[in-house]
Amino acid sequence: MKPAQIILDPPEWLPAWIDTHGDSYPDISTRMLLAIELSALNIEHHTGGPFGAIIFDSVSYQLISAGVNRVISCSASIAHAEIMAITAAQQQLGSFDLSARGLPSCELVSSCEPCAMCFGAVPWSGVRHLVCAARDSDARAIGFDEGPKLSSWKDALLQRGMTVETDICRSDAVEILRHYAGNNGLIYNARHDSLPG
Amino acid sequence: MKPAQIILDPPEWLPAWIDTHGDSYPDISTRMLLAIELSALNIEHHTGGPFGAIIFDSVSYQLISAGVNRVISCSASIAHAEIMAITAAQQQLGSFDLSARGLPSCELVSSCEPCAMCFGAVPWSGVRHLVCAARDSDARAIGFDEGPKLSSWKDALLQRGMTVETDICRSDAVEILRHYAGNNGLIYNARHDSLPG
Repeated sequence: MKPAQIILDPPEWLPAWIDTHGDSYPDISTRMLLAIELSALNIEHHTGGPFGAIIFDSVSYQLISAGVNRVISCSASIAHAEIMAITAAQQQLGSFDLSARGLPSCELVSSCEPCAMCFGAVPWSGVRHLVCAARDSDARAIGFDEGPKLSSWKDALLQRGMTVETDICRSDAVEILRHYAGNNGLIYNARHDSLPG
Repeated sequence: MKPAQIILDPPEWLPAWIDTHGDSYPDISTRMLLAIELSALNIEHHTGGPFGAIIFDSVSYQLISAGVNRVISCSASIAHAEIMAITAAQQQLGSFDLSARGLPSCELVSSCEPCAMCFGAVPWSGVRHLVCAARDSDARAIGFDEGPKLSSWKDALLQRGMTVETDICRSDAVEILRHYAGNNGLIYNARHDSLPG
């Protein structure tokens, strides 16, 4: 019989990090710096790519869930930081829809603008607010690929009633991306590197 | 400490179904009818939405993995059939990239054209061939929403070296979608139904 379950593990250090971040973080830059800290810790611990994302309760400003890139470690191309944070929040709150009645209004704070997949995942997630640090172009500059994404992706989210903020602590996030690239971090999304032939 | 793992479970009946489908299926319609059978079984067993997907070895035409929609059961908006099949194949083969050297060339056979998220996920997956039955417009006709997707999504995949075939057994897939809608199956992606206020 084939394996029964898909399992996406956070890195070992992440649950303890979450436990020490139970405060309220009303300042958006402070919330973003936490997501960027996750991207740096993921490099430092050799547990994945240089991306971090956090779901916050957008009223209490408390952390609900956090995710980092786990593509290689989990053998799963979907395991981007945003997907990990969104799915952790949904399973913790027991709902596939973070906009369901009775749930806190959720904000996704990500160290980088979403790739084509994560952009497509956001409307289904029920997240109401998206905040990004590094731009698509910053990730491309070190060799990552955001995929075939609508050029009007921000407008598409606005039209679905979400708010979108970009360039929050961008330079801090770019510094982590450059550090990763400068230390020969694996750029695994560059299809031409991994295609046979 | 917060929950440690994200778990995406297939329905109980699926591993046994996979075990009884170890043959080679060289005919594309036969492969598609298996994916459509999964979409029907998922309704019949009340284990999720009317969507099924299978990863085939595109040389031996044997099944590698299969997935059905598990959004509600797994409390995970990412748990579309395509994502379940892709991730199951990757974890089974031990690679985030189904195009990695030494792996079989993989075909994703899906009962419906991909939503915005699944479309974005396909290039990262390493799948080389995409085959679809029902169209986006068929899913929309019963109330599902494919999300903000590039109108040129097929070309975008072709440009990345993939092949795309559509309308394979379309009428069979549409029949299942209509059956689901006619029996008041939950159309969970319609944001206006689940948004607060």
